[in-house]
Formats: sequence, C-alpha cells, structure tokens
Amino acid sequence: MISSTRSKPKHEEDRVFPRPAPVFTQGATTLYAQFASVLRGRILGGEFAPGDLLPSIAQLCKTYNLGRITVSHGLQILADEGLITVERGRGTQVIHSPGERQTLPMFKSLTTMSYTDPEKYSVQLDTRLTGQPLPDNRWAVGEPFDSYVRIDKVDSDDGRPYCQSTVYVAEAISRKFPAGAEKKYKLFRLVQKYSSMPITGGKERFTVAAADIHEAEKLRIPMAAPVAHAIRVFTDERNRVVYYGISSYRGDLFGIELDLSEHFKP
Amino acid sequence: MISSTRSKPKHEEDRVFPRPAPVFTQGATTLYAQFASVLRGRILGGEFAPGDLLPSIAQLCKTYNLGRITVSHGLQILADEGLITVERGRGTQVIHSPGERQTLPMFKSLTTMSYTDPEKYSVQLDTRLTGQPLPDNRWAVGEPFDSYVRIDKVDSDDGRPYCQSTVYVAEAISRKFPAGAEKKYKLFRLVQKYSSMPITGGKERFTVAAADIHEAEKLRIPMAAPVAHAIRVFTDERNRVVYYGISSYRGDLFGIELDLSEHFKP
Repeated sequence: MISSTRSKPKHEEDRVFPRPAPVFTQGATTLYAQFASVLRGRILGGEFAPGDLLPSIAQLCKTYNLGRITVSHGLQILADEGLITVERGRGTQVIHSPGERQTLPMFKSLTTMSYTDPEKYSVQLDTRLTGQPLPDNRWAVGEPFDSYVRIDKVDSDDGRPYCQSTVYVAEAISRKFPAGAEKKYKLFRLVQKYSSMPITGGKERFTVAAADIHEAEKLRIPMAAPVAHAIRVFTDERNRVVYYGISSYRGDLFGIELDLSEHFKP
Repeated sequence: MISSTRSKPKHEEDRVFPRPAPVFTQGATTLYAQFASVLRGRILGGEFAPGDLLPSIAQLCKTYNLGRITVSHGLQILADEGLITVERGRGTQVIHSPGERQTLPMFKSLTTMSYTDPEKYSVQLDTRLTGQPLPDNRWAVGEPFDSYVRIDKVDSDDGRPYCQSTVYVAEAISRKFPAGAEKKYKLFRLVQKYSSMPITGGKERFTVAAADIHEAEKLRIPMAAPVAHAIRVFTDERNRVVYYGISSYRGDLFGIELDLSEHFKP
C-alpha cells in the first residue's frame, strides 16, 4: 500500500503555479516593515541556515525594487530581533535557525492555563475596583453574582510582559484571598481554591487581532502587531459566574496545543 | 454569601491608574493606520452606539495631535470596513454595533474543524505534487509513509478566501479519492473516509503571526495583518502520518471555542 516514489513530480495531474514575486505598496504597513516581514519569512522558513550570508544590500535593493535606506532599515529590524547580524564590510549573516520561535504561554487542552515558572511569574496590578457589575454584553451564559472585583493587570514572565487582562472575580470569593495573593498567583487558581462551591463549568474563546495602543503599551509591542484575544468564563455548580476574564496575549509568545486523539476513540 | 454592593468603589484597596493618552509615533505602522486602530477599538468596544456621531475631524485632530489628512485617511479606512459613514456636511456617523465581528471559521473543541456551509465552500488548488516526502523539520511525531501528495490550496466561503494551506496526504490514501473530491471536501474528511486503517491520533497547534506577502495575496488582506497559523497532524492506528497540514487563517475570520467543563468532572 505504501508507494516508494520519492522522485520529482511525474503524474499527469501534477501542476505547479509558481509563486508571484512580492510587490511592495504604500499602505498601512511601511515599506521597510513589509520588506522585513518577507525576509523574516525566508529566514524562519529555513531558506538560509545559521552562518549563511544574505545577498548584499545592493542585490536586495534590486530583487525587491526598493531603495537602500528602506533595505537597511528592514535589515536593522531583523538584527534587533536577533535573526541576523549586520557588520560593515563583512555582509549580513543569518544567526537564527528555523523553528526557534519561543512560545512561552503554550496552552494545552488538558490545562488551558499558560505554562509559566512560578518563580519567574509576576503580576502588575493596574486597576482594582470593587462593587462592579459584570459587563452587559458579555460572551457566554451563567448567572451573575451581585458584585465583582474588576482587576486590570499585566502578567509577566521573567520581567517580560506577555498578557494584559481585565478580570471580574466574584467579590464574595475575592474577600477570602490572602493578602498579596493576586500579585503572585493566577486569579483563576485563587478562585478555584477559595470558591465555597466547586467550579464545574468553563468556556474559552480565542480570536486574533492587531494590537491597539493600549495593548501595545502594556505588552511593549508595536501598534498593530498581532495579538491573541482570549475570553474565559468559569461557573460554579449553581451556574453562577465566578470568573470572567478578557485577555490579550503578545502574538509572538502565544500558542495553543490541542490533543484530538480522544475524539477518535470509539 | 452574595454581596449586593453595585455602587462606586469605596474600599480602601481600590486603586485606579488612569489609562495614558495615546501617543502615535512613526514606525512600522503608518500614523493613519494607528489612528484607525484606536478609533476602531473605541467603536468596537462599545463607546459609540450605532447612529452616534463621532467628534468632528477638527476635534479628532486636536485630541490625537494629528493632521487633517491623517485623520481623514484613518476615517476612510473605517468607512471601508463598514464601521462608519463619512458624509460631507453631516459629520461621521457610527453604523456598526459592538460585538458584530464575524468569526466564520469558528472551531469547537469537539470538532476542531471549521464550520462552513458545504454549499458555499470551495477550494482553489494552486499546486498538486505527487511523490513528495514529509518535511524534515515537522512538528509532532509519527512514522512517515514513503510518499505524499503535497497540495497547496485556498479555502473560500461564499467566494471569500479565509484559509491558505499546504497539506501532505499519504499518497496511497489520496489515490482512492473520487475525481474532483479535493475541490469540494475538506481534505481531512477525505483522508478519514478513504484511509484503509482507522485514524486514531490527532494534534493541532495554533499560533499567531503577521501576514507575509504570500498569505496577504492568497487571503486578500494587507501585508502584516494578523493571521492565525495552524499545524495539524493525524495518524492511523499504526502511528503513521496520514495527514500533515500547515494553514494560515485570516485573523478577522478566525476563532476557536473550547469547552473546559469536562476538566472539572470528578
């Protein structure tokens, strides 16, 4: 059943339509950022190995029909990202291997919580408001408690912010949190521990967006850089909303892994 | 247990640090795109209801410290997106309600396949190569077959491209597909139907990125617009990789929903 043809395409149905050459246009993204994006893709895609020299600036200008300043600026971005080194007179060298992308908060289907070393995890509390109602237009169902604590915060790993959130925690539960706990532990873990009733329901929804100015500042990324949005709702056995959270994750530090094997079980 | 305080913050620990005013800077994103992004966030965030008038262009210039051309250009982007109408002499009116975002390929944890109306689903096959090996640096384990069909394609819903993929299908299985089936049905569904052995394993991984030029062209979105990347691997009961797919989804049409309730079951 297993064929052993590893050779070039030979079947009649084989068809290849070559990829069109990139064309850069003035628009929402500057030309040097477009150029950097394409070259980043070529490097991360494995076209160049660590140690390889990139084409010269003059060659890159010609290939992409761009000016010298645009190309130099684009190369500087990739140098700042640690993908290449630009040395005068020695050319541009690739120093990054494909597949090295760091995905710090990697969610797994069994936990759905981000993996962070508790020793390195820290929280910056921006706003803490008691006596709040749940937002009206919220996603997912569940009966609200009368009052919530609204917490605006930024989670960091080893001093590096990766998630900015607004979380509503049932106030009755939050009153049982030990002093200072909100700065050290994930809020959901605290809710799970101090809820007087078992948590029995949970839903989350992930979408993708371009960072707005608030996210850009909190996560220290450029405006319009990609971010992942997460909404999470947890309910107790009386179907009351104990936790409602809206989070933005840095796109370059976000990942979810799902094991689908259980769906194939007979 | 449930408190009934819905009033203003009154506890000693309440702290509010006001959000800093947006500052636009020259960078990878043009000023008008930054301005559009902030205003889009205010509209989608519910600050304006449909029918509300936005502040005048002169006021927006003052608030954001931007020139008239930049503000007009940013408003035009939001008008093109269907969020506002700009009418000379009548001001700028909001026509979009918050929460109307369309998330066409919404994945659920039980299916992980996108919801598309089969009547509206169509596939554009860009490349089809037989006799291919699996990529060397692939994600996730499993024994490779000797030979795969590599298919580069774009999935559309109602003529609108939402996903661009490169998929490797075990060639032995692909030979059993009916003629034309690859243009009508999801490849995984075909693999599941025509594999001689049951599919027993599956994993997927989602990450977030800025669209490169290839993705931008295929998905008809701007360069550097946010996209979701998915890698999917399916294995048969002998742990052989029957399907290996790498996909890019338009960020504005992507979503995943997970039901976490089963993790709380005793």
